[in-house]
Amino acid sequence: MNEFELIQHFFTRSACAQGGENISLGIGDDCALLQIPAGYSCAVSTDTLVSGIHFPEHAPAFLLGQRALAVAVSDLAAMGAEPIGFTLALTLPHIALDWLQGFSEGLSAMAQHCGIGLVGGDTTRGPLAITVTVLGAVPQQQALLRSTAQVGDLLCVSGPLGAAAAALPVVLGEIDTQVIAAHTLEQLLAAYWTPQPQLQLGQYLRGKAHAALDISDGLLADCGHIAQASNVCLQIQQAQVPVADAARSLLGDAAALEAALSGGDDYQLAFTIAAQKLAPLQCKFPAVRAIGQVCAGSGVQVLDPQGRLVAQQRSGYQHFN
Amino acid sequence: MNEFELIQHFFTRSACAQGGENISLGIGDDCALLQIPAGYSCAVSTDTLVSGIHFPEHAPAFLLGQRALAVAVSDLAAMGAEPIGFTLALTLPHIALDWLQGFSEGLSAMAQHCGIGLVGGDTTRGPLAITVTVLGAVPQQQALLRSTAQVGDLLCVSGPLGAAAAALPVVLGEIDTQVIAAHTLEQLLAAYWTPQPQLQLGQYLRGKAHAALDISDGLLADCGHIAQASNVCLQIQQAQVPVADAARSLLGDAAALEAALSGGDDYQLAFTIAAQKLAPLQCKFPAVRAIGQVCAGSGVQVLDPQGRLVAQQRSGYQHFN
Repeated sequence: MNEFELIQHFFTRSACAQGGENISLGIGDDCALLQIPAGYSCAVSTDTLVSGIHFPEHAPAFLLGQRALAVAVSDLAAMGAEPIGFTLALTLPHIALDWLQGFSEGLSAMAQHCGIGLVGGDTTRGPLAITVTVLGAVPQQQALLRSTAQVGDLLCVSGPLGAAAAALPVVLGEIDTQVIAAHTLEQLLAAYWTPQPQLQLGQYLRGKAHAALDISDGLLADCGHIAQASNVCLQIQQAQVPVADAARSLLGDAAALEAALSGGDDYQLAFTIAAQKLAPLQCKFPAVRAIGQVCAGSGVQVLDPQGRLVAQQRSGYQHFN
Repeated sequence: MNEFELIQHFFTRSACAQGGENISLGIGDDCALLQIPAGYSCAVSTDTLVSGIHFPEHAPAFLLGQRALAVAVSDLAAMGAEPIGFTLALTLPHIALDWLQGFSEGLSAMAQHCGIGLVGGDTTRGPLAITVTVLGAVPQQQALLRSTAQVGDLLCVSGPLGAAAAALPVVLGEIDTQVIAAHTLEQLLAAYWTPQPQLQLGQYLRGKAHAALDISDGLLADCGHIAQASNVCLQIQQAQVPVADAARSLLGDAAALEAALSGGDDYQLAFTIAAQKLAPLQCKFPAVRAIGQVCAGSGVQVLDPQGRLVAQQRSGYQHFN
């Protein structure tokens, strides 16, 4: 089976390549063609996952397919965009039919969940790496930016944090899973392998939130991005940060809080919004929590219940450090 | 220097990140935002180059930057699309400042040449690989497809073929360059490292050509793609195929013809067009040559001057073979 047949078999015929109403030409030509509705901008983002860096070398193919797409679609959610299509650049050390089958099924499951279609890509030989580029549409002037937080806003997150970071030693096989309660184990693995892009919330926040992003590098690091882009200070009330139950069960309260503050891979949204908009928002999205506020100044501050600054040891995962 | 500073320094401030009028938000947020003009489709294509597979491990960074973008933009040319923006997923084994400087300068030079702006990307650690996703705009219903060749059309190519394939042993350091005439060497290296996306021709062919693609896998293989997608037979008159002078000088006539037919990496366009449109086309694009015709049937046939079928040994480079 040569490269072209390979791509055709596993991806052109996969469920994720069936396309939506805004895909006028899918896989198979020099380019795909997407329709961006009148009055909308085209939103685009690229993410790469490399074996041994972003996932274990022997990660299950189905889970990897789900996760690779979810991580990328999360960037559309963070802009308030509606997904349309994605391209997949897949670098493989060799052809393994079982692996390709599992990977394309995982990709398809997440694509259907998010309402996005595979429109093209490239398959090359080399060390396993997955680059997904997602495209979506967002009404002009309504995209959720990092740079428009306003002093006086509440700082909110879309749901509990820390489970994906807590799951990492489990995913890496570094701890004995038999000592973990089945329910906790299930939540940990789901948090790591099947992050849920917050698409509905992102679209709801258009015209309401002042700034937003998705939490991929860790709450503190990502809040730092908003603070820097908006030229403000974000104050976080440590006691208000929602910590995932599974992280608490595995790690205990202190380490779970640390995972919620500094661990990555949660793919919840962090956003700033005027205080009077919180109550109606929480009626529709009850997992949303206000965790702090936007102040004049710069950087990110974590405060204890007495309002004292809490020293932070690290501010999120970064490559090349 | 951490990942974020790295990306910011070399790419956000690079000449290629200055953006054009259709880029309303560039690098630095969760997504970039592009404006697709009313009545246009968004064209998107992804290409990956892997070290040791698509380019030599010690390839000069500047040339690699130029080539990685040119190869991707060529897909926009093949659709008749106008370039807008691109994302770059760069996987690096380590930070080498000189390399990044050279690469970003090569990328910027080609970006300015093509009128396209860097709008986002991802930098990760791992074996050197470059994935470029290009985005452009093409008037609805006017994109040049592979699937719409018509029986009776002329088959044309945009210029001479074979120089990039002939250059390969030079690029790989497999032959002594001192025995090659300086002018020939210059042409060979330019053909390989600085392919010229045929953007003006592609846009001119909208509403005129019936089918088109760019020649990346080799003339025969790529004509095979048109034949299959359009359900026709493409007949090539071997004597009409324009062979690059530099390929002839290095390889002699017979091997140069083989390079023109089966070598890849030329990034000229192959297209089919009604015969009466050839003369006005050649006035504007004098390098265009008619090399055959579209017939009922399937596959690709190469004919000698007596109209006899020429046997072909191979039909283009493919990975995993």
